[in-house]
Amino acid sequence: MRQVAVIGAGMTRFGKHIDRSMKDLAREAIEGALRSAGVDKEAVEAAAVGNAVAGLITGQECIRGQVVLREMGIGGIPVINTENACASASTAFHLAWLYVASGMYDVVLAVGMEKLFHADKKRTFQAIGSGIDVETAEEFARQMSGEQSAGAGESRSVFMDYYANLARQHMARYGTTREQFARIAAKNHTNGSLNPHAQFQTPRTMADVLATPMIADPLTRMMCSPIGDGAAAVLVTSAEKARQLTAKPVFVRASALGSSQRHSEGEAGIVTKVARKAYDMAGIGPQDVQVIEVHDATAPAELLVYEELGLCGVGEGGKLVDDGVTALGGRFPVNPSGGLLAKGHPVGATGVAQIAEIFWQLRGEAGKRQVPGARVGLTENGGGVIDGENAAAAIHIFTV
Amino acid sequence: MRQVAVIGAGMTRFGKHIDRSMKDLAREAIEGALRSAGVDKEAVEAAAVGNAVAGLITGQECIRGQVVLREMGIGGIPVINTENACASASTAFHLAWLYVASGMYDVVLAVGMEKLFHADKKRTFQAIGSGIDVETAEEFARQMSGEQSAGAGESRSVFMDYYANLARQHMARYGTTREQFARIAAKNHTNGSLNPHAQFQTPRTMADVLATPMIADPLTRMMCSPIGDGAAAVLVTSAEKARQLTAKPVFVRASALGSSQRHSEGEAGIVTKVARKAYDMAGIGPQDVQVIEVHDATAPAELLVYEELGLCGVGEGGKLVDDGVTALGGRFPVNPSGGLLAKGHPVGATGVAQIAEIFWQLRGEAGKRQVPGARVGLTENGGGVIDGENAAAAIHIFTV
Repeated sequence: MRQVAVIGAGMTRFGKHIDRSMKDLAREAIEGALRSAGVDKEAVEAAAVGNAVAGLITGQECIRGQVVLREMGIGGIPVINTENACASASTAFHLAWLYVASGMYDVVLAVGMEKLFHADKKRTFQAIGSGIDVETAEEFARQMSGEQSAGAGESRSVFMDYYANLARQHMARYGTTREQFARIAAKNHTNGSLNPHAQFQTPRTMADVLATPMIADPLTRMMCSPIGDGAAAVLVTSAEKARQLTAKPVFVRASALGSSQRHSEGEAGIVTKVARKAYDMAGIGPQDVQVIEVHDATAPAELLVYEELGLCGVGEGGKLVDDGVTALGGRFPVNPSGGLLAKGHPVGATGVAQIAEIFWQLRGEAGKRQVPGARVGLTENGGGVIDGENAAAAIHIFTV
Repeated sequence: MRQVAVIGAGMTRFGKHIDRSMKDLAREAIEGALRSAGVDKEAVEAAAVGNAVAGLITGQECIRGQVVLREMGIGGIPVINTENACASASTAFHLAWLYVASGMYDVVLAVGMEKLFHADKKRTFQAIGSGIDVETAEEFARQMSGEQSAGAGESRSVFMDYYANLARQHMARYGTTREQFARIAAKNHTNGSLNPHAQFQTPRTMADVLATPMIADPLTRMMCSPIGDGAAAVLVTSAEKARQLTAKPVFVRASALGSSQRHSEGEAGIVTKVARKAYDMAGIGPQDVQVIEVHDATAPAELLVYEELGLCGVGEGGKLVDDGVTALGGRFPVNPSGGLLAKGHPVGATGVAQIAEIFWQLRGEAGKRQVPGARVGLTENGGGVIDGENAAAAIHIFTV
């Protein structure tokens, strides 16, 4: 398979875009990606479009990509609409990568887009809640601790209960504290204050995070990713073509995707397994990674991913936080963009937005949040929940 | 890219499966595909799952493939959920083909599945209606002739008006008759009577078809594909591996996908363009094809596709019908399975079901509807409508 490179990236600011359609948001992101690549829309040979819940929010259940692209005058080409819950966009990126890696196409667009805000907030939570097996939703709620689940799916996402449960397990097993979770959220909000694309751009302290209302113990509001709208797009080409088009191609060293699997206690989970696959593809290990974007749907999720990516041993995530290892300036800067907690989490846009951030970081174009000299980056994007873990996970590794 | 082969196929009977879940239908199809390939589920390395409207019908908007596969014990692997309206399943097949053709995986499952029946019939029509740009749905209705559109999306699919409009244009331009459309429907119902998987298994005459109620002039009910539930699955591998696993591999010679594009009057439309691409990939022309499954969402649609595939010249579709060229026993047997009109059209299942039919035909396993000695087969699957033509189209060519 051929080596593939990212040559352009664009995204909207994430946030509450009540008056803008998904088309309008996607157009801004796609135009940004084309402009930054210096490539005309006529050169695009195929597109992979990730979206999670437009069917339930806007009613556009089908041909989600075509309705966006045709208004931009992009037609004729293969359009793959794809979904993998919160990992929809990185699945789209994986397919764009596959098209180029296979040799089938040279210039392929990967798009992630989402409108989550809806006049009926309950509908938003129900849409997000379809990232679990809806037939067994009641069983799922029972698996969470009873009291914490009251209201899940009505006034908040069921995922907050899922993550709260994981957080409590980690606290009980390894002595992890709510202060450590709060520190992660404060770090990401502080990073977000340096990112003009972030939904929240106010620096926060651990005390600020702990002072926000409790959503599902131990998660306070600021430990949970917000509802948001937005879009992101990147353009991929063969490494050979990339070298012709730009002085700063960002090479894709690994594109690994996996799904959950029933496994026994103590056996590695989905993120660990997909990470191993990604490191194998790239021929590197966690020690080589210099900038990382992970799926911090909640603050504890980020801590768990530290361990799953091998940034530290199992149970040592809390110490990593205390030592400031994952802050800007640390050994493993995680979520310099602000992550899902502060940059925001329009679910079907998130995966490509993570990749856009790593693209900018590796090109030295990340402004005030730049990780100096970073040459190896990694993204981790999880989607949905099944069998007690992410239903889908995608990990990508990039180098310059 | 590597040559790819289909080594197994399975499908449910299409029809009204009120008491069966989508999981249950998909499981039957997947188990059938694995059994016919003689391959264990543990050997499956990735899956591409096509579905169009489960978000609106069952509420399972996200991780549609994972909820099906995990209950069968298939996990860990990449699962790509994909949608392209009525072409969802052939898009899934295209991705499964791409995974194998690229060299990334050796054994990949392609699944199409759909539940359309819902207690509220209006919901079914609205879900199917999301195969157009829902933001411009009113404009779309106006583009159809006013009178014919009354009730579209409420008591019938908007697509029936779209196809009725195309049929009237063809009649006005080329003298095509409603009797010719009726003959296509009668042929497909008669073929369906030979297919145990078909939703309708009663032979029909032209007079029978014309006697059914008018849906949108000139379409009578029997010229329109029915609402249905069902699933289909096929297993693909590298040609090399296929030769080890079976004495009868069916090779994929072309996998072409395209989307609609604004074009001027007289310029080739999407199906014509994708067909050219497919013939180029396969290195053959229409004259070489011996058995064909096309997207007869309505009888006129089948007639138009005759011309778009080059089975006859533009405007000559009616004559092809009168001459019996596309009937079983004719020069170009089209829809020996009964097609969408009689086999049925659970939208997200259709594309893989077409491929399953060609698989059986080329292996000589199509029972009473067998096209004797067929060695070259083609499938054409269209999805959604945008810019006055299919939003997506997929054409595959197979040989033994």
